[in-house]
Amino acid sequence: MIPIEVTDAPATCCAPLVRETLSAQDAERLAHTMKALADPTRLRLLSIVAASDGAEACVCDLIEPVGLSQPTVSHHLKVLTEAGFLTRSKRGTWAYYALVPGALDQISGVLVAA
Amino acid sequence: MIPIEVTDAPATCCAPLVRETLSAQDAERLAHTMKALADPTRLRLLSIVAASDGAEACVCDLIEPVGLSQPTVSHHLKVLTEAGFLTRSKRGTWAYYALVPGALDQISGVLVAA
Repeated sequence: MIPIEVTDAPATCCAPLVRETLSAQDAERLAHTMKALADPTRLRLLSIVAASDGAEACVCDLIEPVGLSQPTVSHHLKVLTEAGFLTRSKRGTWAYYALVPGALDQISGVLVAA
Repeated sequence: MIPIEVTDAPATCCAPLVRETLSAQDAERLAHTMKALADPTRLRLLSIVAASDGAEACVCDLIEPVGLSQPTVSHHLKVLTEAGFLTRSKRGTWAYYALVPGALDQISGVLVAA
C-alpha cells in the first residue's frame, strides 16, 4: 500500500478581507495557513514545484536549488503538505510533491481588493 | 512636528510564483512581508481597517473588536505599518490607520495561478 499523507487542504475561507471583516475563527485558520507560506525556503520550494512540468517535482530535484540538507528540505515540504499546498506520493525510491490545484488561489482570493 | 512612521512598503515583488521560480532574495522579502500577515489578530485588524469607510480607522475603534489591550493592538498595528500594509497618521488624541492601496494586491498577485 502506498502511503498517502492526508492533507489538511485550506478549507473554503473566506470572503476578501477588504470587503468583509474576518471572523476570529477564519482569521485563526487563515493565519495558520499563511504561516506555512511565510518562510523563504518554503516559498522557494513551492515555487519550484509549481513551476515544474505538471506542477510536480521529485524531492531529489528540490535539494540542490535551495542548498539545504535533505532532512531540512523534507521538513519544509511536510509543512507545505500539511497546510494543504502540496500532495506527496512515493514512487520507487523518491517522494514526489505536486501542487494542490486552487490552494494558492484561495489565499490570494482573500487578499484581493474586491 | 507630527511624527510619521516610515513604511517599508512591499516593494514590487514578484512574478507569480507558479510561473517563475522565486529568487532567494525575492523569497526572503516575500516571507518577511507574509510574516506580518500570518497572525490572526493582525489579519483581523487589517480586515477591520480595510472594511471601514475610506479604508481608514481610528485605533480607538480597533481595540474592542479584537478584545485586546491598547498596547497590544498598537504593537500589531505597528508591525502592519512597518510591513507596508497600513499608514499611520495622528489627528488630535488618536492615531488613525489607513490601508495602503495595492499592498495586499501585490501579495495576492504573487500567489495567483497565472
